[in-house]
Amino acid sequence: MIKARRERVFELMQAGQSKLIAGFEAQGEGEFKAYSWERPGGGGGTARVLEQGSVFERAGVNVSAVYGEAVPESLAKQHPATEGKPYFATGVSMVLHPINPYVPSFHANYRYFEVGDSDIWWFGGGADLTPNYAFEEDIIHFHKTLKAQCDRHAQANYAQLKKICDDYFYIKHRQEMRGIGGIFFDELSKPGTGDWEADFAFAKDGIATILEAYIPIIEKRKETPYGEREQTWQRYRRGRYVEFNLVYDRGTLFGLQTGGNIEAILMSMPLYAHWSFNYQPEHSSPEAKMLEYLQPRDWV
Amino acid sequence: MIKARRERVFELMQAGQSKLIAGFEAQGEGEFKAYSWERPGGGGGTARVLEQGSVFERAGVNVSAVYGEAVPESLAKQHPATEGKPYFATGVSMVLHPINPYVPSFHANYRYFEVGDSDIWWFGGGADLTPNYAFEEDIIHFHKTLKAQCDRHAQANYAQLKKICDDYFYIKHRQEMRGIGGIFFDELSKPGTGDWEADFAFAKDGIATILEAYIPIIEKRKETPYGEREQTWQRYRRGRYVEFNLVYDRGTLFGLQTGGNIEAILMSMPLYAHWSFNYQPEHSSPEAKMLEYLQPRDWV
Repeated sequence: MIKARRERVFELMQAGQSKLIAGFEAQGEGEFKAYSWERPGGGGGTARVLEQGSVFERAGVNVSAVYGEAVPESLAKQHPATEGKPYFATGVSMVLHPINPYVPSFHANYRYFEVGDSDIWWFGGGADLTPNYAFEEDIIHFHKTLKAQCDRHAQANYAQLKKICDDYFYIKHRQEMRGIGGIFFDELSKPGTGDWEADFAFAKDGIATILEAYIPIIEKRKETPYGEREQTWQRYRRGRYVEFNLVYDRGTLFGLQTGGNIEAILMSMPLYAHWSFNYQPEHSSPEAKMLEYLQPRDWV
Repeated sequence: MIKARRERVFELMQAGQSKLIAGFEAQGEGEFKAYSWERPGGGGGTARVLEQGSVFERAGVNVSAVYGEAVPESLAKQHPATEGKPYFATGVSMVLHPINPYVPSFHANYRYFEVGDSDIWWFGGGADLTPNYAFEEDIIHFHKTLKAQCDRHAQANYAQLKKICDDYFYIKHRQEMRGIGGIFFDELSKPGTGDWEADFAFAKDGIATILEAYIPIIEKRKETPYGEREQTWQRYRRGRYVEFNLVYDRGTLFGLQTGGNIEAILMSMPLYAHWSFNYQPEHSSPEAKMLEYLQPRDWV
């Protein structure tokens, strides 16, 4: 039974990776190549990465499954009941940076943690969008799709998970969100207290909802003509993506501190980023308008 | 007397900023524009920034002088004797990212901290070089110049300050140095124990030595022909510069956490940075050779 749960989640992650990649590859030219890595302490993963395709500048969908004899210290501090116990963790995570500046970047992950005899377990995850230009219809579609996902599961409250996302993806030193949010949660049910089948079903639905939330936006915007101005702005915004991920993102910092696979962890970096001193978009420009959307707001 | 010390250091920083800018501007086209900012808690600074010049892609030389009624918490933890006391801090800091990939990036800062009745004070500082291509003669010139600076002052030990620099500018998750090092020190003399005039003289000499250490390298390499290959490598290496500064640099993180002037703090970011999955330079290429230099090594 213990093994069965882990296996079921790991299979879900792997199947998710394959389906998502098929969906993303269908958007244009370019192939996700596979890079497998092993973790010295136990486990490993497969990063699947596409660079310089016709639609995506850089896109990666990773699956990993790691285990060890004792939960990492930082985690034991958060959850004292897990201290010294063996653990198993698996997840699928993805970051996509499109070429066309009118197509937003996208990030999502779903992950599972299990400790000891599997009596302590939890699911985490979420999905969020980072546009360079704001199209309200796209943002509403994205949030409505995630709300519908939450509404299909009694234990998932969209308003709550959206708020966690708004709070988490906030670049404090810039006083702006990384993008326009989505949903995010560290623990869908508190460790050891939830209905495992129900939380598994939510993670499964979450992975299945990714294409529904993101692909229509890609399809609508990927042919929009753009020039140097839009590309410069895109790369400038990607500098903010870099700032968030390297300064604040817990997963990134945890990975760097614990000697995870660097290339898989930093797959979230864009292919190109740009900084410029004290850059201010022109008043009333579409670039200036985007900045107004980088504060929490109701979308459904 | 208390005021005189502060004023002498602040004047040193300001005079240093002017001289350095004159030296850098003489290298090509482009002007350092001035941006002044005020700190809500007390003090302020002037960032002087050049972007898209003929030699420098992005170059900034900042001077700041800030003060307050009680030393910041993080500092009081390091130096319990300073707790609750008024403080004054001033410094000059600079980062230069040249356009030509054969010209290294350069960073230096000299800073001064004074607490209470000026009985507790210390100087910090250093200078380091980040080439994309290794020319041993350039690296030797750089280190020899810094060693000569140290040798002129009884209290400064080059070997010691070089080691601190090697240790500090280390990108742990990449297991490589940010560049080829230089000298670095948090406290030239332990707070309150040194000879103020001697430490002031070292800081003054350090600022004066910057042009001597860096300008000959700019002059030797700035006309070297290069193509897309070298530029791509340069931007890839600048991604590592970004990784170091946002993940490890204490000054950057302290600035971001304490609400400093963001643009002045992040002036260290390059204009352009590039990431690429699992990029490995060709065996025996000049790019692969550079990587061999990113571990501590004796240079004098």
